Amino acid sequence: MNRIETDSTIHFSQLGHSAEPPVIVELMNRALMNPELLSLAAGFTDNAVLPGAIVAEICKEIALGESSRECLQYGQNQGRAGLRELTCEWLGQHPGERLECFSPEEVFITNGSQQALYLAMQTLCDPGDIVLVEEPSYFVCLEVLKGLGIQPIGIPCDQKGAIQIDGFRELIADLKQGGQWDRVKALYLVSYFGNPSSRSMQLDEKEAVAEVLLAAGAMIPVIEDAAYRELYFDAPHPVPSILSLEIYQRFPKLYLGTYTKPFATGLKVGYGYCSHANWREKMLCIKGHQDFGTAHFNQAIVERALEQGNYASHLELLHTHYKAKAEVMDTALRQWGLAEAGWFWEKPKGGLIFWLRGPDSLDTRMESTFCQSCIDSGMLYVPGDLCFPNGTPWNFIRLSTGSLSHDGIQEAVRRFASVATKSTFAASLL
Amino acid sequence: MNRIETDSTIHFSQLGHSAEPPVIVELMNRALMNPELLSLAAGFTDNAVLPGAIVAEICKEIALGESSRECLQYGQNQGRAGLRELTCEWLGQHPGERLECFSPEEVFITNGSQQALYLAMQTLCDPGDIVLVEEPSYFVCLEVLKGLGIQPIGIPCDQKGAIQIDGFRELIADLKQGGQWDRVKALYLVSYFGNPSSRSMQLDEKEAVAEVLLAAGAMIPVIEDAAYRELYFDAPHPVPSILSLEIYQRFPKLYLGTYTKPFATGLKVGYGYCSHANWREKMLCIKGHQDFGTAHFNQAIVERALEQGNYASHLELLHTHYKAKAEVMDTALRQWGLAEAGWFWEKPKGGLIFWLRGPDSLDTRMESTFCQSCIDSGMLYVPGDLCFPNGTPWNFIRLSTGSLSHDGIQEAVRRFASVATKSTFAASLL
Repeated sequence: MNRIETDSTIHFSQLGHSAEPPVIVELMNRALMNPELLSLAAGFTDNAVLPGAIVAEICKEIALGESSRECLQYGQNQGRAGLRELTCEWLGQHPGERLECFSPEEVFITNGSQQALYLAMQTLCDPGDIVLVEEPSYFVCLEVLKGLGIQPIGIPCDQKGAIQIDGFRELIADLKQGGQWDRVKALYLVSYFGNPSSRSMQLDEKEAVAEVLLAAGAMIPVIEDAAYRELYFDAPHPVPSILSLEIYQRFPKLYLGTYTKPFATGLKVGYGYCSHANWREKMLCIKGHQDFGTAHFNQAIVERALEQGNYASHLELLHTHYKAKAEVMDTALRQWGLAEAGWFWEKPKGGLIFWLRGPDSLDTRMESTFCQSCIDSGMLYVPGDLCFPNGTPWNFIRLSTGSLSHDGIQEAVRRFASVATKSTFAASLL
Repeated sequence: MNRIETDSTIHFSQLGHSAEPPVIVELMNRALMNPELLSLAAGFTDNAVLPGAIVAEICKEIALGESSRECLQYGQNQGRAGLRELTCEWLGQHPGERLECFSPEEVFITNGSQQALYLAMQTLCDPGDIVLVEEPSYFVCLEVLKGLGIQPIGIPCDQKGAIQIDGFRELIADLKQGGQWDRVKALYLVSYFGNPSSRSMQLDEKEAVAEVLLAAGAMIPVIEDAAYRELYFDAPHPVPSILSLEIYQRFPKLYLGTYTKPFATGLKVGYGYCSHANWREKMLCIKGHQDFGTAHFNQAIVERALEQGNYASHLELLHTHYKAKAEVMDTALRQWGLAEAGWFWEKPKGGLIFWLRGPDSLDTRMESTFCQSCIDSGMLYVPGDLCFPNGTPWNFIRLSTGSLSHDGIQEAVRRFASVATKSTFAASLL
C-alpha cells in the first residue's frame, strides 16, 4: 500500500488556515536536534536542579497509598480542591498580598499557565480584536495572539522597560479617537522578572496604569503574568499582584501563576486566578471542551510538595542556583567585551533571562547574517524583534541562563561574543 | 477590602459568549460531591485496577535515573519521540493493521485524546459548519462541537447502531441538494465498543461508508475515535482501523487513541494519528499555542510501561476485570426485571458502557421526573438524548460499569430498577 495523501481535499477553518508553527517550537527543535549547539534561547529550566528525588518519593507515596491512589483517576475540570486551597495559601504569602482576598473557588488548574492565557484570549477576543502589551512583551503570548487573529498593540515603554504613563494615556486617547477602542479587549502585563525584560513592575507604575484606565473609563480585563515571580535571587519583588491592589479592585482580573518553572517542569502544572465569576466560568467551559481537566496525578504531586514544604525548600535551592548562573552570565558578557562592543544589559534580580540591546544599526532577526553567524559559531539566542508587537526594533536579543551549566554559559557567551564583537557587527562608533 | 466584581464590563468573544458548561462536568461534579449517590454515569475507570505499583516503580526509575531525569524537563510540542515510536508499534499489533503504514512522524501526543479531537475541530470547522456523526454518538464530542458552534448531523443508524448505508447515501444527496454539503467538514466515527452504543463497526459497514463517500466525490476528513478499542473482554475486535484499510487510503484521516482509559487514567496521555501532513501540522501549531506540549513526565511513564511490557500485562488484567463487571451489570439488569419492564440492551463485548433503550414513551432527560426519581433513589445515569445530535429520542440511557464495585453496580441497578419498573415508568403494554 502506497502512502498517498491528498492535502488538497481539506478546506481548513479560518483558524486552521492561518495556523503557523510558533517560533518557539522551531527554536526548541533546533536546540533539541543539535547537541553541539549551545542554546541560550529556549526557556528551559536547569536539569541539574530538577527535583527528581522529591518527585520520586511523592509518586511512591501517592501511587501506592490506599487513600491517595485516586490521584491516578480523573479529577475535576477545575482542578483538585486541595491544590486550589494550597495555591491560595501560597499566593497569600507573597509580599503585600491579602490572604483574605483569595478563595479556592477562583483558582483553576491548567496545563502550564500558557493554557490559562490561551483560554483567556479565546473567551475575550474575536479575530481583529486588540490586546495591549508592554514593549517588549512575552513572545509566546504574541504568538498566541497572532494564532487567534488578535492584534497586539504595544504600550510605550522606556529603555528599561517601564511603562511611560503619559504615552499610555495618549495611546488610549488615540485608540478612542481612531474608533479602535471598542476592539481593545484586555491588557496583558508581565510584571515580575519580566520575560524578556527581566524587569519587575514598580508599585507606582502599576497603580498609575490602573489610574489611567480608570480616568479613561476603560475598565478592561487585566491579565498579569507572574510566571517568574518565585524565581527571585535575593528577595521577592515587594509589589503585590493586581489581585490585592485596591485600585484594581473593580477590574476583571486574571493572574497567571505556575508550578512548572519553579519546580518539576515536566509536570506542567500551572493555574489561573480569576476573581471575575462569569469570565472564569467561560474559561472553564472551554477547558472542559479542550481536555476536561489537567492530568490529576501531576496535580496531586504538586499538592503534596506544597503541603509537605518540599516545594518551598526546593525554591530556596533554585534562588541560589539561578543567582549564581546569572552571575556567571553577567561576568562572561563583561569579560568577553560585550559592553565595549556597544551592547547594554542590566543584571537581573530574578528569573532566567538576560535582555541585551545591541548597537542601534544591528539586525539580530532570525534571517539576519548576525543570527546565522551565531548559529554557525554554535550558539542560539531568541531574536528580540519577536518580543515587539510590531517587530521592531531589531537590535535586541534574549538570552536564557536556564539550561546550560556554568561552563556552557561561559562557552556560549564566548561564541556569541566572537560574533558580536567582530568589527562588522560591533558599534561603528567604538 | 470588599470583593466587588463587575461582570458587566466584559464583552466576551463569540466563543466566550456562547460557552456553556459541558454536561459531563455537571454530572461528574454531582458524582464527586455526593458520596451517597451511586453513579453509573461518569466514564471513570475503576480505582481498584489503577496501576499504582507500576506507576510508582516507573516514577522512581525515571525521576531518579541520571539519564532519564530529563523527563522532568519540558519536551517537544509533538510529544516524546520514543513514545511516538512505541505508539506505532503498538498500533501495528492490533488485528489487521499494517505496521508498515505507521510512522512516528504522524503521531502527536495530547492531553487525553479529547484534546486531539478539539484540535481537529478547530482546524477544520468554522461556526456554522457541519460534522456528520452516528446516531447515537459520543456526547462529549457533541458538546465540543456545540461549544465551537459546529452543527452535528446524524447519520441514520438501525436499532443496534449500525449505519444504514442507504440512509447515509440519501443524507449526502439531501445535503448536496439543499446546498449544505459545502459546510460538511468531517465524518466522526466511534468504531470500537462505541460510546455509547457499545457496538463495534463491522468491516463491510466501514468499507461501505467509504464507498458511499467516494461515489459522491466526497473525500472529507474522517475521524475515527478508538478510545475503548483496547478494552475488549475476550478478543480484540477484528476490524482494522481506517489507517490500514485500502479504501480509506486517499482520505484525510485522524485516528484518536488513548493511554488514559486503558492504563493510569490520571496521567491523561492520549494521541492522534494523522497521516495528512498539512492537517497534522495545523493541529500541532494550535497545540503549540494551547499548551506547547503535553506533560513530559507523563509521556515518559507511559513510554516506559509500553517498553517494559507493563502496559500490555496490565491490559490483560483489565480485560478480565471489566468483563466480570459487565457480567454483573447484565445479570443485575435481568435480575431486577428491566427486560420485563420494557427495556432492551445488548451485553457488550468490551468497553465500560451499557446502552439501554427504555419504553418508547419514556422521557429520561435530565429534567425529567424519571431522572429526578433515579437521583432521589440514589443513582445517576447519562440521559441518552445527550448522545443524539438533535436531542431525540428521549428513551435511552447510558450506564457505565467503570467506577463502582460489583456490589455497587448491583445496588445501583437495584435503585435504578426500583424506579424503572414502577408502573408509572414501565411500558404500559406490559
